[in-house]
Formats: sequence, C-alpha cells, structure tokens
Amino acid sequence: MQSTSISNVISSDRVEGTKVYNPSGDKLGTIDDLMIDKLTGHVRYAVMEFGGFLGMGTDRYPIPWNVLKYDTSQDGYVVPIDKAMLEGAPRYAQDQIPDYDDRYSATINKYYGL
Amino acid sequence: MQSTSISNVISSDRVEGTKVYNPSGDKLGTIDDLMIDKLTGHVRYAVMEFGGFLGMGTDRYPIPWNVLKYDTSQDGYVVPIDKAMLEGAPRYAQDQIPDYDDRYSATINKYYGL
Repeated sequence: MQSTSISNVISSDRVEGTKVYNPSGDKLGTIDDLMIDKLTGHVRYAVMEFGGFLGMGTDRYPIPWNVLKYDTSQDGYVVPIDKAMLEGAPRYAQDQIPDYDDRYSATINKYYGL
Repeated sequence: MQSTSISNVISSDRVEGTKVYNPSGDKLGTIDDLMIDKLTGHVRYAVMEFGGFLGMGTDRYPIPWNVLKYDTSQDGYVVPIDKAMLEGAPRYAQDQIPDYDDRYSATINKYYGL
C-alpha cells in the first residue's frame, strides 16, 4: 500500500532505472539518463536503454519528454513506440554522447513527429 | 574557447556536482540531486550540498529551481542566498530524504518567498 501522503516528485537519482513500457504493458527497458534544459530546468529528453525483450543492445535512445506518459499504476513510463519505430530512431553508443545542439534536437523531434 | 555548436542541455548525471555560487562569486557548494515533477518533467528543486566555506556540514538544502540562475560564464548556478538565510532554511540529513508532499513543498516555497 502506498502512503496516503503521496509525493509528486522523484529524485533524478531515482529516475534512472525507472521502467518504460509500451501501451500493451510490455517492458521495453529503463531510463538511463535525462537531458535537462540548462536555463529553464525542463527535462527535454529521457534517454532510454532498451535492454528488454527487443534485444536492441546497449545503444541509447533519446526520446522527447512529451512522448512519455507516466503511469502511476505501473510506476513507470509508457511510450507509444513499437519495434519498427525504434529500429530507425536516433541512437548512440553508451559512451558516445552526441552534442545535443539545435540540429540534433531537431532531428529527434522530427523523428517523433514534434 | 567554446565550440560554436553549443549544447543547451545537460545530462542529469552531470548536473550533480555543478557548482553553486552566491552573487559575489563565492562558491557555496554543489548540486547533489534534483527533484523532478513526475508528471510534467519540470525540475522543481535542486538539492544542494553546502560543503564550501560556510562549513554547514553535509545537510541537504532543497532550493526551488526558480531561485537558481544559470551563469554560463561561471558554468554554474548563482543563488541570492546568504549565510543567515541558509541557517534557517529547510534541510535534512543526507540519508533522510523527506517525503516531498504538498506540505513540504509549501514549506520550502514559503521560505524562499514563492
């Protein structure tokens, strides 16, 4: 049972590792990192590691924050993404974080229809 | 010299450890953690460790995000907080993170005049 005093915030330390599901309830993977706008403090991208049943290896996938929906019942995020979409999605190797400049941001946002 | 391709985002992994200064340019300490609104993705509080010249020990101080200003020239945050304000500020021991419920949030915000 949850406490009756529900916290609406989560520590950045703890977001890392939060599970990500598709709309069918399958676990896709976990959030590995967050990309935060330095000036406004908005989380712009969640960087996901898809280590689940899709077997996509250890690449990192930046997903626009607005694409994720937090589902309190699953205590995780739900994304409307299937394997075909992931296969063409922007990604990078774990140890090769790109410069998230305007061009790269535009590439990500365009891919997800934003 | 900075690259001409400036990234406006920062990884949550890297925010931890970002320096915090007072308006005079003295280093107060570092950001230890971020408290993020689960639903909106806004960073609501930066949790600071004041391990600098003030000698305030290892308590953690949650500061409303809006109180911090990012200073690109110092590559850190500036807060309009002096020692007297810190002495009475909401804080907790490093290993005793409170429940950030509405009541606690209101306490913090009120203290900082929000």
